Amino acid sequence: MSSASPCTTRAIAWHGRSLELLDQRRLPRACVTVTLTTAAEVAKAIRSMVVRGAPAIGIAAAYGIALDAWRAVADGGGGIEADVHAAADILARARPTAVHLRWAVERMCKVLEEGPEASPAGRARRLEQEARTIHDEDVTINRAIGKHGAPLLEGCSGVLTHCNTGSLATGGYGTALGMIRRAWEDGTRFRVYACETRPFFQGSRLTAWELDNEGIPVTILVDSAAASLMAGGAVQAVVVGADRVAADGSVANKVGTYGLAILAAAHGIPFYVAAPLSTFDPDTIRGAEIPIEFRPADEVRFVEGVQVGASTVDVHNPAFDVTPPRYVTAVITERGLVKPPFERSIAMAVGRTGQREGGGSPWCGPAET
Amino acid sequence: MSSASPCTTRAIAWHGRSLELLDQRRLPRACVTVTLTTAAEVAKAIRSMVVRGAPAIGIAAAYGIALDAWRAVADGGGGIEADVHAAADILARARPTAVHLRWAVERMCKVLEEGPEASPAGRARRLEQEARTIHDEDVTINRAIGKHGAPLLEGCSGVLTHCNTGSLATGGYGTALGMIRRAWEDGTRFRVYACETRPFFQGSRLTAWELDNEGIPVTILVDSAAASLMAGGAVQAVVVGADRVAADGSVANKVGTYGLAILAAAHGIPFYVAAPLSTFDPDTIRGAEIPIEFRPADEVRFVEGVQVGASTVDVHNPAFDVTPPRYVTAVITERGLVKPPFERSIAMAVGRTGQREGGGSPWCGPAET
Repeated sequence: MSSASPCTTRAIAWHGRSLELLDQRRLPRACVTVTLTTAAEVAKAIRSMVVRGAPAIGIAAAYGIALDAWRAVADGGGGIEADVHAAADILARARPTAVHLRWAVERMCKVLEEGPEASPAGRARRLEQEARTIHDEDVTINRAIGKHGAPLLEGCSGVLTHCNTGSLATGGYGTALGMIRRAWEDGTRFRVYACETRPFFQGSRLTAWELDNEGIPVTILVDSAAASLMAGGAVQAVVVGADRVAADGSVANKVGTYGLAILAAAHGIPFYVAAPLSTFDPDTIRGAEIPIEFRPADEVRFVEGVQVGASTVDVHNPAFDVTPPRYVTAVITERGLVKPPFERSIAMAVGRTGQREGGGSPWCGPAET
Repeated sequence: MSSASPCTTRAIAWHGRSLELLDQRRLPRACVTVTLTTAAEVAKAIRSMVVRGAPAIGIAAAYGIALDAWRAVADGGGGIEADVHAAADILARARPTAVHLRWAVERMCKVLEEGPEASPAGRARRLEQEARTIHDEDVTINRAIGKHGAPLLEGCSGVLTHCNTGSLATGGYGTALGMIRRAWEDGTRFRVYACETRPFFQGSRLTAWELDNEGIPVTILVDSAAASLMAGGAVQAVVVGADRVAADGSVANKVGTYGLAILAAAHGIPFYVAAPLSTFDPDTIRGAEIPIEFRPADEVRFVEGVQVGASTVDVHNPAFDVTPPRYVTAVITERGLVKPPFERSIAMAVGRTGQREGGGSPWCGPAET
């Protein structure tokens, strides 16, 4: 089901027995929401990028599990455990690179395991509550990232960002855009340069739209114009989000991030990554181990049905790339800055959170293949 | 006038009193040619990118001058000198960055100046002949560039290129694609990685189409995926064209080239520029002096009428960037390789050609403003 509604930058809304997602593929041309009632529908929406952004897909997946838990209750309740396991499996596999998705699914599974003696309705209620908590916490975490990161942008007249890391990519507020929002709220005055971010145009469609709505000056540019923009002196900081941060400080993020990091280094510009601690994956030792999602060729060959590349031509379409730690000035988390040397600082940061215990099954579904 | 026809990669065809251009904005979706009969129409076609590519716009401009010379003859012939001056002016100003355009116009003007005693028809005939010669020579020059450059690609399994530098961008054959074509003809086997080249998609629309037509394996990628492609080891050479090479070896070329040059250096990959000597501009001492064309915002906000950025959002849309000489491994010309230190090698290369004498009026129209 889809419907038009007054447009906000709220990506995800929970309605008790249904999940409403803003269809981000259609912004800013049209403001359309889709209403989903099953985990399978949520997984499909994640795969097809109705909802995107590492934190947002984690939140959507958590709600997806709650949806199937309530459906199991409606069917008598006996199948709730199997149904939640199946939902967890399909959701955790929806996209491979962002570890936050797996983190959210694991967290839901732990809740299921905690209360086997409760009634099915009680278990569903507890799962729904956990999804709401993940959602609420994300906004709190975003605001904390913003608070820790904003001072880094003091004195900047131009800040470059890539993809969308704002309200639309998270539970609200944003990671890299959270830093930018907070710096603006604190009175720092700058222009945001938003790389358009092919092939999905998250920068020109989403980031520019979000910032423009809030009156923060924003300029869009094709991704390949970032180098000369930096050479011209317009940019004093690059800020991006992350889909996964490995134990060595390697950062998986939207394709193009790695190139921007090299360009920033070549121009002496600091390169900041804004990411919640749930994005850190200490089980992934090096960046080369991070699975990179390759997406369909037609995402590059066509733009909304308009052909820009011959149908017969081969396409290389990685959704993400990995930036080696030597290019990362700092990672801004909800607990503060994580700086080089990363092996040590990340181990300390993750150890403090207690969110990961290492080893064990990745989520309550089958092991990753 | 426009018409559909069986599609070839021939960008420019001269028909005596009219010039036929393949409308490159519509490839590969549609194969449509436009027939032009005045210099003003040719200038408009150059500005709107019906025809693009530094050598091709120079050739088109030369024919544009011939068109107005013949029109002056049809009008009695008395106005031929004023009409050619006016045509030269409008054509030389059509796009500011590529020096080849000015070079071709200057060359036509010299021909006009050579024979003031001839009849108007004789002068028009001589101008038409010069335009044909510029066109024919370009193919010969392209083939010479290919011959000199092809050995550099021996042993490569992957070659990355940007924009379109092929038959469509030249009189035929191509500069960087000429090198690639010749290496392929010589038996070197590789895959070409064509950056799509936003905002006009010259890579995915034109380069991929040209190479695919000839059976040379080609893969397209979004511009921002080049960095991770290099990191993965798929590319052993980057080859691009040029719109202007300054006396210090700075290279103005399609926006994105500079970033690719930095990425190539970061990955230890040679970065080659294939350019005719007419692209060298010894009057431009440093790269910073090269005028960079900024194009309309809607070229970034819309893709064939599909909105990808909010209409109100500011756009930074440079058509070109400048790569400093330290990133350039060699420039491949029709006379051979020009290598660092460039001040010396370029002065020698240009001195040998005798095409430029330094100083003097830039073309037969008014001085550049």
